[in-house]
Order: sequence, then C-alpha cells, then structure tokens
Amino acid sequence: MVVSPLAPACFPELPSIRGVRLTTARCGMKYRGRDDLMAMLLDPGSHVAAVFTESDTAAAAPRWSRRHCRNAKARAIITNAGNANAFTGKQGMQDVIALCAGFAAHIGAQSEDVLIASTGVIGESLDCALITAEFQKLATADDAGWQAAANAIRTTDTFAKGASMACRIDGAAVQLCGIAKGSGMIAPNMATMLGYIATDAAIVPNALRALLVSATNRSFNAITVDSDTSTSDSVFLIATGAAANTEIEDPDDPRLAEFRHALDHVMQDLATQIVRDGEGASKFITIDITGARDEISAHKIAMSVANSPLVKTAVAGGDANWGRVVMAVGKAGQSIDQSCLAIAMGGITIARDGARVEGFDETPVTEHMAGDNISIQVCVGDGPGTARVWTCDLTHGYISINADYRS
Amino acid sequence: MVVSPLAPACFPELPSIRGVRLTTARCGMKYRGRDDLMAMLLDPGSHVAAVFTESDTAAAAPRWSRRHCRNAKARAIITNAGNANAFTGKQGMQDVIALCAGFAAHIGAQSEDVLIASTGVIGESLDCALITAEFQKLATADDAGWQAAANAIRTTDTFAKGASMACRIDGAAVQLCGIAKGSGMIAPNMATMLGYIATDAAIVPNALRALLVSATNRSFNAITVDSDTSTSDSVFLIATGAAANTEIEDPDDPRLAEFRHALDHVMQDLATQIVRDGEGASKFITIDITGARDEISAHKIAMSVANSPLVKTAVAGGDANWGRVVMAVGKAGQSIDQSCLAIAMGGITIARDGARVEGFDETPVTEHMAGDNISIQVCVGDGPGTARVWTCDLTHGYISINADYRS
Repeated sequence: MVVSPLAPACFPELPSIRGVRLTTARCGMKYRGRDDLMAMLLDPGSHVAAVFTESDTAAAAPRWSRRHCRNAKARAIITNAGNANAFTGKQGMQDVIALCAGFAAHIGAQSEDVLIASTGVIGESLDCALITAEFQKLATADDAGWQAAANAIRTTDTFAKGASMACRIDGAAVQLCGIAKGSGMIAPNMATMLGYIATDAAIVPNALRALLVSATNRSFNAITVDSDTSTSDSVFLIATGAAANTEIEDPDDPRLAEFRHALDHVMQDLATQIVRDGEGASKFITIDITGARDEISAHKIAMSVANSPLVKTAVAGGDANWGRVVMAVGKAGQSIDQSCLAIAMGGITIARDGARVEGFDETPVTEHMAGDNISIQVCVGDGPGTARVWTCDLTHGYISINADYRS
Repeated sequence: MVVSPLAPACFPELPSIRGVRLTTARCGMKYRGRDDLMAMLLDPGSHVAAVFTESDTAAAAPRWSRRHCRNAKARAIITNAGNANAFTGKQGMQDVIALCAGFAAHIGAQSEDVLIASTGVIGESLDCALITAEFQKLATADDAGWQAAANAIRTTDTFAKGASMACRIDGAAVQLCGIAKGSGMIAPNMATMLGYIATDAAIVPNALRALLVSATNRSFNAITVDSDTSTSDSVFLIATGAAANTEIEDPDDPRLAEFRHALDHVMQDLATQIVRDGEGASKFITIDITGARDEISAHKIAMSVANSPLVKTAVAGGDANWGRVVMAVGKAGQSIDQSCLAIAMGGITIARDGARVEGFDETPVTEHMAGDNISIQVCVGDGPGTARVWTCDLTHGYISINADYRS
C-alpha cells in the first residue's frame, strides 16, 4: 500500500501513560502477516468517557460500548480490525456480549467493564473463536507501546496515527497520548472512526465527558473525507488518575486550562492525520468561516464547502475555482446575504461585498493552489459565528480505492 | 466531447406548441461555432409558472425571473449559455434589467414580461453587447424547433434533452413538450439547472404553479449527480391556452388527471436524462425507499443513499457492496430501526430484518451490478412513506471533467 503523500514524516515518540497497558495480537480474520487485535488494559480506578456514531445503523460494538461507558469505569477496551460486526442482527450483539464476558474473565473483571470497538467490512458476522484464541496473549502480554497499537487497528489507513502533549494541572505534571484510525467513510457525526486518548490525570467522569464532547466538536467532528458516516465511529478518552493532581470535578475549572488546550491539540492532531490519510488525498484543505450567525451555522457552511465534490475536485486540479465555493456556501441553507460575502484562498482576497474584487490577479492564488496545503477563508457577514474544518481533495485515487475495495 | 454512454439513441420528435416560437442565435461569449442564445417567444395570454434554486447565492437571472413570474404572464424567456452571471454583484442585476428591457422593446412588451435564465461560469460579468447584438434575430426569426433550442442551452451536456406527451383535458387534445440542460452541479433544491416545459392547455396561473411544484418534487427534485446545488437552477412551465379546452382553475380538478400524468412523464423523462448525462456517468441508478414514516423522511433516506460517494463508487466498480447502503441509510438521521431494515438490489433480497438473509448467494446480484441500469430497494419499516430518486455512479470521468473544467 502506497503511503499518503500527506503523511507525517514518522510516527511520533509517545510515552507510556501510567495505568495503561497496550497489547496486540493477530487473529487473521481478514489480514495476514500483521496484528489485527488490540487491547487497552486500564488500572482499577480509571475513568472513561466516550462518544459514538449517531448512525441509525450503528454496529454492535458501539452500541455495547455506549451503554457500558455510562458507568464511567472500564478495565479494558478491546478492538479488532477487518470486520466491523455491523448490520449482523442479533448474532452480532450476542458475539459482542460473549467477547466482552470472555475477556473480562481473563482479566478478573466484570463483562460490563470491558468496552469494544470493531472496524472493517459491514454485514459479515465475526468468527469469534479466532479472537478468543488470542485473549490469553492480549490479557497477559507486556506493554507493546502506542505505535504497535496504532498499527493493529489500521484498515485502509496508509500510516499509523499518534499524537501526544504534556501539560500541568494545578502544578502536577500530566501526560496525554492518543492514537486513531480512519481513512474513508469519514464524515463524523458525534465522533469518527476509532480514536483512543489516554491521560494519567485525575478527573471525575462527568467532567471527563464534558471535556471530550467539547474537544470532539473542534477535532473529529470538524473533519470530512467523503461525507459518509461510519457505523462504527468511536472515540474513547481515558483518565487513569495515576498523576498526582488533585481530582478535578468541574470541566470549566480554571486549573484545567492547560489540559483543555493539550486535549484539543492531541485530538486535532489525530483528526487532521485522518484527513491527511483520506482515501486518494493529494492536498490538505483548511476551511475557515467567519461572520456567521452562530457557531452551528458557521460549521454547516464550512461542512457544505468541505463536502462539495466540485470544490474538492477543483482543489485536486489546482484550479482556483472560487465560483464553486460561492455555490457551496449558497447551498448550505443558512440564509446568508450574498452581498456581504468575502472569499479568500491562501490569504489572498478574491471577492468582497458579493463580487470579485476589482483588478483581481489570479496568479498568486494559482500558485497557492499548486501546493499541497490549501486554505479557503469565507466571511459570510458580521455575525460572531466562526468555524474551522479540515478536508482533503477528491482525486482519481478515491475512485480507484472505492470502486474495488469491499469495505 | 464524448456522448454519455447512457444517452438516448436520438433526440425525440417534438411537435410545435401552438403559441410558442423558439429562436436561437450565437453571441460567442464563451463558445465558438455553435448557438448559445435561445429565446422562447410566447403569444399574449400565455401563463407561466416557475421554480428556482433555493441557493443563498442565487444568480441575477433567477432572482429577476422569480420576482416577475409572479404576475404569471410572460411574453418571452431569453437564455444564454456559457456565463451564469452569478455572484456578479450589483452589475449582474443591472445587466439583467438592461437585457430584459432591451428584448422587451424588440417584441413590443414590458420588461417585466421578459424572463431570463443564464448558465455557465460563476463570478464573471456578462458582455451584454454581444447578447443585445443578436436580439433582432432572436425576436424575428422563424421557429427553430425544440432540438435547436435544446442544443443552444447546453454547457457541459453531452447530448440535447427533450421529451413530450399528448393528452386530453375534458376531451380537448393537449400537447406537452419540454427541454432541459444539466450535467454537473446537480442536486436540486426546488428545481435544477434549466428546464422549459410548454403546453397549449388553458390553465389558470395558480393551478399551473401547483401542478409544477408537485411534478417538480417527483422529477427535478428527485435527482442528484453530485450533491452540489447550482446558483442558476430554473424550471419554467408555460401554458399558452391555444388548445380548445375549458380553462381549468383547480389543480386537483379530475379533468386534469391525464394532464398531471403527462406532466409527470415529461418532467421525469427530462430529469432522468440529466442524470444519464451526469458528469462521468457510466451507470443509471434508481433508488426506491418504502416503509418510511412519511414521504419527506423517505426522500431524505433516498437522497442519503443517492449522494453517498461510497455507494456511487461501489456501483461504478460493479460491486454489490450492500454494506455501504446500510451505512448511507444509517447516516440519514431518520431514526429508523435497523432491525426492520430490508435491502434488495436488482429485485434480489440481500438483507431482511436487520441482517443478511440466510444462504445469500451474491452471484445474481453481481450479474445485475454488471449492467448499466442499477436498482436499489430499501424497506426501512412499516410506515406509509415512499420515495423514488435517480442518480448515477461516481467514476474517474467525474474527476477528470471537474479537476480541469472551470465551470
């Protein structure tokens, strides 16, 4: 598999998180010669928050995990890559129950303390025996580290995705690390694909959940590759409490300022890596909307531009076709006044007050479009609403991958 | 330009409509060696109804025509192809006013009795002198016929689109004919691209408008090529009243039963021809949703499937990838119960009651997918809502056309 031209130079150095052990194994249900199972083992007392796909056809794993992450304590998250166990009817949920109970027995926990994520083909039942045969190894192996874990959860991903940041809470040193997978079927609605972020901070469950939801809206919910929402999207945020900070109860506590910033950083880093691995992507696109009625309106306009096939193909062709941006803003249904519209690309103003600026010279915009890091800025009025989303271009590569691959 | 493989064998034989004269000319603003102007001249007493793009960035022409079709009488509709006069600020509307006043003077009408449509590149001002130089010819030439008119309004279209049907109203013979253009930027919201349907029936303006809105929902609003909504979409329905029928005042009048059927037929024929000319299309797809809460819900689910890049690329690849249909139904946000979901392709049931049918044999479905006329049927519950929409596959051709063409 050819690595995306937008991939980072290498997988980052990620430190261990006290209270988290990562193990991997290979069951071979779909892939050969690589690990395809990952377990994240958590010390007792860890808290977990999670967000999941809002798809009506959510798979069995996110339905189980959504229900059981409510108790906010978890001892393990197990993951298999290659089969999403989605749209598999009653059998699918029975398999999830059996897997979580089975793994719980291996680690001396209750089955509801085991969460699960699955990614891969839709509509085929799991071969559970292949997975359970690896439980002993997954439960007892030494820590394999973040990179091995990130590799084990890949499907069509062309590179493993990881990010981290250190910060302080009330003077205590705290570490945040995360991994994610995703490449196609990326248009999150609440969360996207699989993401796992762990910290050793001590934060109570309600605050942890509020922090996750807020950061998700600025990261995994602010990306799109192809406007298609997966049945398996899950993002987990684990706080082991192993750091020495005083446990924080309020998500708006000023002592969390640095932590909130670090969480945004890690989650945006992971989310944009998913865009950089977008199927067929050759250019990374940042879209900024300002002047909207409110943030929700700004986000809808930004996503309308980000999901427009005509905008994405124009970027692929290096064409400064700003008329398609006008079209995509117009179709967003946000009742904007086009006579106030301003558009810039690469920081160069193309249109203002609803028309092209006088004496506009396309040359510097075309130069910007020739690069692989494209920015589109749209001001739609004088409202306070702003939004930033990330996407990639739409190329022949996307067609080649998806007209053949059975995902 | 290579003609779409899904094009009809030839342009249909379309009779003249009493009270309608079609003329064409070439102004050369964008195209060379072909007509690019079309005027539809209407006898006094003709009624017109129209629907337009709901884009916030609607171009000057549909904004003018929307305002002036309210008086329901029109003496002409003038159209230019190659420049949409969209996002051209105040100058754009001044140009429209000057063009309509100028043409009105040539035919002895008021400027508000001249409607206008423009299609082509966004963001560039019209060169009005090129158009007005042809007004004398457009105003006085003999009838050029529907095929010449359909050719004059083409942009990226690979074939001219026409349709007709005869019927009776209260015993009187009535004729319906229409033409349309459109190929990319097709995801109608109220209407799509340009459509002109004329009849010699006598129908009062309010009834005419009700008939058009209803038929639009089952035709131009039930198609999508790429989910992108044009700034210039306009569909006109003209009734000259030259037929000998008693003028009808109520759109639900039982004497209009045949006419309503004929209008549906003509508009669906034109709408599906636009899909068959979808940029890069190699397969025509019909999507039927049944069992939804209501028709609006069914339509949203159908459009979610029709706009899914992953469904469209699977069809392009001849892949019976029904898991992607599950995904697209799930992301539509219609709160369906996946345990009731049934999916068929080419009439062959693949899944029922939320899971693949036992002993499912993919062979006949794969045979169906190898053809160029694909059907996808989804039953989402036991509600009364149904919807049918049409789309095409997403191929390398779409990328090639749109990564280069400045539209």
